[in-house]
Amino acid sequence: MRAGTGLVTNSKIAAIILAAGKGTRMKSDLHKVLHPIAGRAMLLHLIDSVSSLNPEKTVVVVGAGRDQVEDAVAGSGVEIAHQAEQLGTGHAVAQAHEALGDFDGDVLVLYGDVPLVTAQTMSRLSERLHQPDSPAAVVLGFRPADPGAYGRVIVEAGSDRIAKMVEYKDASESERAETLCNSGLMAVRSRDLFALLGRIGNDNAAGEYYLPDIVMLAASEGRGSAVIETDASEVAGVNSRAELAQVEQDWQQRRRARAMSEGATLIAPETVWFAYDTQLGRDVVIEPDVVFGPGAIVADRAVIHAFSHVEGAQVGEGATVGPFARLRPGAVMETEAKVGNFVEMKKAVLGKGAKANHLTYLGDAQVGAGANIGAGTITCNYDGFFKYRTVIGEGAFVGSNSALVAPVVIGAGAIVAAGSVVTRDVADDSLALARGKQEAKPGWAAKFRALMKARKGG
Amino acid sequence: MRAGTGLVTNSKIAAIILAAGKGTRMKSDLHKVLHPIAGRAMLLHLIDSVSSLNPEKTVVVVGAGRDQVEDAVAGSGVEIAHQAEQLGTGHAVAQAHEALGDFDGDVLVLYGDVPLVTAQTMSRLSERLHQPDSPAAVVLGFRPADPGAYGRVIVEAGSDRIAKMVEYKDASESERAETLCNSGLMAVRSRDLFALLGRIGNDNAAGEYYLPDIVMLAASEGRGSAVIETDASEVAGVNSRAELAQVEQDWQQRRRARAMSEGATLIAPETVWFAYDTQLGRDVVIEPDVVFGPGAIVADRAVIHAFSHVEGAQVGEGATVGPFARLRPGAVMETEAKVGNFVEMKKAVLGKGAKANHLTYLGDAQVGAGANIGAGTITCNYDGFFKYRTVIGEGAFVGSNSALVAPVVIGAGAIVAAGSVVTRDVADDSLALARGKQEAKPGWAAKFRALMKARKGG
Amino acid sequence: MRAGTGLVTNSKIAAIILAAGKGTRMKSDLHKVLHPIAGRAMLLHLIDSVSSLNPEKTVVVVGAGRDQVEDAVAGSGVEIAHQAEQLGTGHAVAQAHEALGDFDGDVLVLYGDVPLVTAQTMSRLSERLHQPDSPAAVVLGFRPADPGAYGRVIVEAGSDRIAKMVEYKDASESERAETLCNSGLMAVRSRDLFALLGRIGNDNAAGEYYLPDIVMLAASEGRGSAVIETDASEVAGVNSRAELAQVEQDWQQRRRARAMSEGATLIAPETVWFAYDTQLGRDVVIEPDVVFGPGAIVADRAVIHAFSHVEGAQVGEGATVGPFARLRPGAVMETEAKVGNFVEMKKAVLGKGAKANHLTYLGDAQVGAGANIGAGTITCNYDGFFKYRTVIGEGAFVGSNSALVAPVVIGAGAIVAAGSVVTRDVADDSLALARGKQEAKPGWAAKFRALMKARKGG
Repeated sequence: MRAGTGLVTNSKIAAIILAAGKGTRMKSDLHKVLHPIAGRAMLLHLIDSVSSLNPEKTVVVVGAGRDQVEDAVAGSGVEIAHQAEQLGTGHAVAQAHEALGDFDGDVLVLYGDVPLVTAQTMSRLSERLHQPDSPAAVVLGFRPADPGAYGRVIVEAGSDRIAKMVEYKDASESERAETLCNSGLMAVRSRDLFALLGRIGNDNAAGEYYLPDIVMLAASEGRGSAVIETDASEVAGVNSRAELAQVEQDWQQRRRARAMSEGATLIAPETVWFAYDTQLGRDVVIEPDVVFGPGAIVADRAVIHAFSHVEGAQVGEGATVGPFARLRPGAVMETEAKVGNFVEMKKAVLGKGAKANHLTYLGDAQVGAGANIGAGTITCNYDGFFKYRTVIGEGAFVGSNSALVAPVVIGAGAIVAAGSVVTRDVADDSLALARGKQEAKPGWAAKFRALMKARKGG
Repeated sequence: MRAGTGLVTNSKIAAIILAAGKGTRMKSDLHKVLHPIAGRAMLLHLIDSVSSLNPEKTVVVVGAGRDQVEDAVAGSGVEIAHQAEQLGTGHAVAQAHEALGDFDGDVLVLYGDVPLVTAQTMSRLSERLHQPDSPAAVVLGFRPADPGAYGRVIVEAGSDRIAKMVEYKDASESERAETLCNSGLMAVRSRDLFALLGRIGNDNAAGEYYLPDIVMLAASEGRGSAVIETDASEVAGVNSRAELAQVEQDWQQRRRARAMSEGATLIAPETVWFAYDTQLGRDVVIEPDVVFGPGAIVADRAVIHAFSHVEGAQVGEGATVGPFARLRPGAVMETEAKVGNFVEMKKAVLGKGAKANHLTYLGDAQVGAGANIGAGTITCNYDGFFKYRTVIGEGAFVGSNSALVAPVVIGAGAIVAAGSVVTRDVADDSLALARGKQEAKPGWAAKFRALMKARKGG
Repeated sequence: MRAGTGLVTNSKIAAIILAAGKGTRMKSDLHKVLHPIAGRAMLLHLIDSVSSLNPEKTVVVVGAGRDQVEDAVAGSGVEIAHQAEQLGTGHAVAQAHEALGDFDGDVLVLYGDVPLVTAQTMSRLSERLHQPDSPAAVVLGFRPADPGAYGRVIVEAGSDRIAKMVEYKDASESERAETLCNSGLMAVRSRDLFALLGRIGNDNAAGEYYLPDIVMLAASEGRGSAVIETDASEVAGVNSRAELAQVEQDWQQRRRARAMSEGATLIAPETVWFAYDTQLGRDVVIEPDVVFGPGAIVADRAVIHAFSHVEGAQVGEGATVGPFARLRPGAVMETEAKVGNFVEMKKAVLGKGAKANHLTYLGDAQVGAGANIGAGTITCNYDGFFKYRTVIGEGAFVGSNSALVAPVVIGAGAIVAAGSVVTRDVADDSLALARGKQEAKPGWAAKFRALMKARKGG
């Protein structure tokens, strides 16, 4: 039993993730497997899924861009193997042998650019290895809408055992008429995997060692393999930015459907963009055009109005966000708090029922319950070198267009007069004013206008 | 002749709207029929359509959540009947009998979660009752893209008379091959309806009384019924939030098509979200990503730029809104007025040709024709207890970053100097200044930087 | 060889663009051909494509709305011909005869409401005229998904030579079964064109002179014509605002695909709206909901966050925009500069690495490298008559909620204290303060609250 997933397998598992492709069609300086889906690098989506199976080892095989990949997985316990030359998928898998050491169990072969394979599917691959017919390899097949030029998997009639695996270019007409295709993913016992890899050749046009060849090699040695099927969308690969956008879109559509089935209203689901870890409560309402970055948690009955951007923030029960609000990391809205239009929060707590309704920046701040932050209020939290905190007490009232120069404390129940620049602490229940005296120059405006009109005309 | 619709029928009409379902799949504390489409509760869409037929009675049958429904229809003249136990649609309709009293006419049976049935279709149901063959009931049929498990309506060849109505599970292969499905909606004379309901049984697996049984019962008693057809999208039902989103999407697509056919340009129609009552003039241009709340009226030649949110507001002829503008209820922009980015208006009038182009809050304000409101201007309209008005005269010029502390009057042609906090009225044509005196501390910044760098380094 | 396109033809070319239709279905006071696609009038898209072929003459034939069209093409060298009466497409083309003068070469007949025909297609039309069989006319055909009521082009078997052109209403069953349709566009030698036009009749129900009749007339005189094919989307016409939106959508989809294939990441491509001339570098990332107006240039590695609006602006390498940012014409962000939420730039330069992260208006400003513009800063650039410049030196720090009253210079390394209204120049490395003195009224707030509560209750 592996923790956290409810997935059961008695086998030891290791994963080899191939990420040595050049990704030329991405036209990017960023390694292909580091391009994000739903705010998280493709490779990390895959590692997350593998991790839920408690693998003994996870090895990523990289070619160019090794440093980028190493940085991305730093601290995760994942190991890196290097494929110096691009000699095919079989060769790439072989590069992981040393990193696997004396691991003895099932090896999952995965692809960094096929990011959305689920832990459940990985588990099914492994489990099938251990059924009584004991296949040499278990291949993951799929049936795309258009099988096109994918390699085909031909099964023995009425079974899941593989009669033949064939590249499209080598396939006969009747083989091409088969619709079960090879995703490239597979599970193989570690002992079998490296033994078979040691015996495949590279006698082909590209001079490469192909991983799928181990299936036919095992067959020629009298050992059959099996195939399990999954949905085509789960094994969608990313070779271009258009395919990246398509995988993102598929991910988002599934996430939106789940949000709705769990009890959130999405008025225009196709305009809401979730991050990989967004959490939504029940009876949450999300209006059109809302973007979630990583780390957002939205509690029951909260309303996210249109044109809001929420990242690394907690929205409390019944709280109201936007329209046109931005919650940045560390923003915490407590129950029934309100953040309105053109308001930004960052590392700031807005207490129960407190309001910041218009044109405000709350950074490095603590706002007490029931406080009211007037339009145009700015917490001046930065002096160019350090950040300082603003503390506003319960029930305080900060008048519009005020600047609160941190570090500063506005006491509970205190009032800051509109337009004030507050640089010193304000005591509880007191009034602070800090603004210039109003002067009048009668008739001045009329004279100014006459002068300017003359100048414009002249 | 009924007022307002041009729909003609000589019959008296009553409507029974069934809203007693539990709506479990919505996973919501809000009653299913109160979830909104285009900013208006589903039930109210239906009541609006019924109302245009001038019904003598409209009765909503509710089970759980009665209080929510009563609140929603309060003041509309609609009556509530209660179905204490969920004993089927036939039983639910019977609960309305008492509320209908001695009403003698045509009864429309409608469903609160089938919200977009038109008054025209309702009228067609009623009219068909009165054709010479005098059917016992008129059923509303539809032909979905996938008839799936809907109950089928089998008609006599070459006619609209019903030979049989059958649940999918009880249907033969040839009956399942029929594509005309039963929406559940129907019209029946009140006398027939309750007489028939009194005679149907509940001898079925669920032990429920099914409304459609009255059709076959009438047939067994020698009275035929008829079916009229409508488009499947009109009878789309809402049982989950995903279906709610789909009905919203269908509604929006029709509304966008109408807006364009009536002479508005929608650059990206699929990104514009209307409310049920949005009004648009001719040669209005709406850019991508615009959301309308209820009560918006946009006059000829107005331009709504991208990322704007307009609710309860009037946009005058040739006026310009956004991008990034929010007009809240009570905002009135007169002819050629301009509201620019990051500007909010609420209960405020912006006079002819007046401008508030940047980062401004105008609340509880009156701005005269031709006035210019500088960037960052805030009307300070709230003291935590009461709201106060700001009045700005024609041709006045409010300098940037000013706070106008209401109640306050800025006279016609007056100028407020940038950065002022105005607390007293400003006379016509005069200049008001209210800001601190500028001081300089030469070299201070250089010393501060050196100190801070040392501290950061240390 | 014509400059800029790589298109080769040895023929002299002129273009006649028909734009005399009434456009009634647009329900607009704006001439149909002036409605924009991707921020540019349809007619100008067409003229741009024609111009890349270096035509000797381009003549637009207009009926009503001549003044609007003349204004739109002013300065482009395009000539206007007037069709006073709507007597058919043949008659319309004839109105251009005088403007063409003694031009002797190939005439392209185009339509102002068929805006996206490419220069390459135009060139192919012209080139086909000069192949050995020397057709009298070359017609542009297309195969729509639904040929519907389009006129059909019947070719001689196995060739591109036209056997017959026939209106749908006059076509036989077998002719209607043909899928090659007539777009109306064609190329004809100038001498042939006007000679043939002079001989066609108007003996039809509408009494109009039809341009396609010249093809069958030439055939009757023993001269064949040819057809070339293009994609249906290239010849999509615009007769209603719904069709305008569809052509816009098609254009955008092609543009988004190109952006991705050239190395930009579009997380949600269907929510990004380009202008006709948007330029994007490599490894640019564009988040959901971004709108480009004309004149935007985005350099390598820049990131445009969600809800941004960019028009007439340059975004430097590695610069960051938004979310919720608006760059207006003349905004220039240098390398690694940052513009954050609720910030507007107009005619302003933000130097290398400089930041304006929140709630700021920078208009008519120059900001030096590394400067930091605090939240809520406003450049007060307008006095109601003239605009003035603000200059901020390298490494300056402008405290939050400051108003900089232009013309004003903030020196390099200077600091402006938060909440200041700066009206005089600030020397390098000095500190400027301009704000009111803070006063405290202890207990005042508590008394005020008691009073207000009493008043509210009373």
